Amino acid sequence: MENHIEDSTRFSFDALTKRLSAILRRHGCSQTVADILANNCVSAERDGAESHGLFRMAGYVSTLKSGWVDGKAVPQVEDAAPGLVRVDAQNGFTQPALMAGRPLLVEKATRNGIAAIAIRNSHHFAALSLDVEPFAQEGFVALSVINSMASVVPHGGRRAVFGTNPIAFAAPRANGLPLVFDQATSVMAHGDVKIAAREKKPLPAGVGVNSRGEPTTDAAEIIAGGALLPFGGHKGSALSLMVEILCAALVGGKFSHEVDWSSHPGAQTPHTGQTIIVIDPRAGAQAIAPLAMRVEELIAEMRDAGTDRLPGERRQAARAQSDRDGIAVSTAMQDSLRALEME
Amino acid sequence: MENHIEDSTRFSFDALTKRLSAILRRHGCSQTVADILANNCVSAERDGAESHGLFRMAGYVSTLKSGWVDGKAVPQVEDAAPGLVRVDAQNGFTQPALMAGRPLLVEKATRNGIAAIAIRNSHHFAALSLDVEPFAQEGFVALSVINSMASVVPHGGRRAVFGTNPIAFAAPRANGLPLVFDQATSVMAHGDVKIAAREKKPLPAGVGVNSRGEPTTDAAEIIAGGALLPFGGHKGSALSLMVEILCAALVGGKFSHEVDWSSHPGAQTPHTGQTIIVIDPRAGAQAIAPLAMRVEELIAEMRDAGTDRLPGERRQAARAQSDRDGIAVSTAMQDSLRALEME
Repeated sequence: MENHIEDSTRFSFDALTKRLSAILRRHGCSQTVADILANNCVSAERDGAESHGLFRMAGYVSTLKSGWVDGKAVPQVEDAAPGLVRVDAQNGFTQPALMAGRPLLVEKATRNGIAAIAIRNSHHFAALSLDVEPFAQEGFVALSVINSMASVVPHGGRRAVFGTNPIAFAAPRANGLPLVFDQATSVMAHGDVKIAAREKKPLPAGVGVNSRGEPTTDAAEIIAGGALLPFGGHKGSALSLMVEILCAALVGGKFSHEVDWSSHPGAQTPHTGQTIIVIDPRAGAQAIAPLAMRVEELIAEMRDAGTDRLPGERRQAARAQSDRDGIAVSTAMQDSLRALEME
Repeated sequence: MENHIEDSTRFSFDALTKRLSAILRRHGCSQTVADILANNCVSAERDGAESHGLFRMAGYVSTLKSGWVDGKAVPQVEDAAPGLVRVDAQNGFTQPALMAGRPLLVEKATRNGIAAIAIRNSHHFAALSLDVEPFAQEGFVALSVINSMASVVPHGGRRAVFGTNPIAFAAPRANGLPLVFDQATSVMAHGDVKIAAREKKPLPAGVGVNSRGEPTTDAAEIIAGGALLPFGGHKGSALSLMVEILCAALVGGKFSHEVDWSSHPGAQTPHTGQTIIVIDPRAGAQAIAPLAMRVEELIAEMRDAGTDRLPGERRQAARAQSDRDGIAVSTAMQDSLRALEME
């Protein structure tokens, strides 16, 4: 199912997923890992999250070829406590580790009202929203944080220590897709800076500094030895610090500043950790109104106050269009995929 | 123990606590509630959190006199699920509800690795840092959020819907007091705006809008029908939305915009809810380094990168001075306390 529009072609979700999975297998992933990553990558593209979609494939291939990550890793799930699942991803990607621990996590959250999964020794190179949204589709509230590699200067500091350290949250809605947000604790996500550098577009002021610690609006300067700034000054910086603690100290993963891929040229994936907290709002809630209904009431109030766009709405609109018309892939991206298929 | 310094007098923690407790009892609190609130209020003053310290006493008395809150409420603790404590504060203050549910919460967090407390039908008028720090002193990681009353405009909106909705986080350190932050998701906390209004100090640009939705730097205008703005634009706004969901929809409390004290002139305390998530980093952690040690390593790296002040350090310095010299109370505040003792 292809559908030509200007300089792009629209593909079905399944066709793209199969194609990406084959590329990932070709470059060292097991079938299980390839299928999970391909599905994740196409889901991001479908949702219009360009920086975490097909654009990531070259990075996946590069990092696999560098030997920095094990594409065939089999995650080791530990039943750490009645409310806690720990997973050693065995130097593999995070998404297969999450998939491996997920059934136990959901079982614990359902039984206890709250549970968490703490993944270590893992590589996350994807959109965090995709990790939390499925929990909300099953009626849970989910909060996830993930660190990456030193690229953000702590408030008041002179060089990068934190990762872009996103926070993602998902809650069920009674009358629609879950409410989901996924936002870097830096002013801008690293993926978006990369895209700006590729397109040679200047950034707004306040996004980052160059290698001498001076403010710059040149994305290429930020990538070449510069650093990003936390959003909201000391407040975003404190949240980023929290993410480091929850993703590294709690799970037994590396802090962003400890990630050292210098002996693996071509490596691109942060080797850190991830935590997801899952809450079942139905637990012991006989006396209160269902959360999904209450979320609708809050959204109605926000609309009435003039809020024109909720977090995640742009993503949902892109998804609806992709579901209807197929996923648009530019000619340039098709060339890039073909190159990865030949490499 | 008094110790005169300029136009203030220094009092011991215990002397001040007894005095505040007596005032709260005089105005309708039970002994239990009065003791808990007095301890909380003096702790904030000791920590230099002026906006949540003795300054709050007039508000406590006013809200008690209005009949809006029940100073004698006995919280009802519900063992909602193996990992979840729910508490109906019975229209009383949040702190006694937390104290009532705390032993069960700690037991659950210890057993399960993670647990939460969801408090509803409660009034919170204090520093959120004081709710989370004790958990970190016992080796847990704690995250708390609380909503308040409509005073913050959602990003893109025209009128206030959210509360100032602070997020507080605490983690143990191996070599010192816990790392604690407590920050409003608004650019500025409401208490600080009140203090600026009292002192007739102009605010920085971008803090709030007046009653016509126009930007203003006049704190009095913000209080008189204006509103605050979220920090970091759409990102702070999304976090504030998350706080509303976790504090109202999850716990069965009111959203900030639903708080209506119009029939209780003098009411000052938001009647909402609170959630605290407590994680035991020791759960199933045989294979990884202790969290409190790892936090030290992260802090060392931040210092090395030039970070001159960590979150909570100003508070800790104020506490150390208060512990050494007593808590300084201005002459004006002493007059205010005397008036509350006479009312």
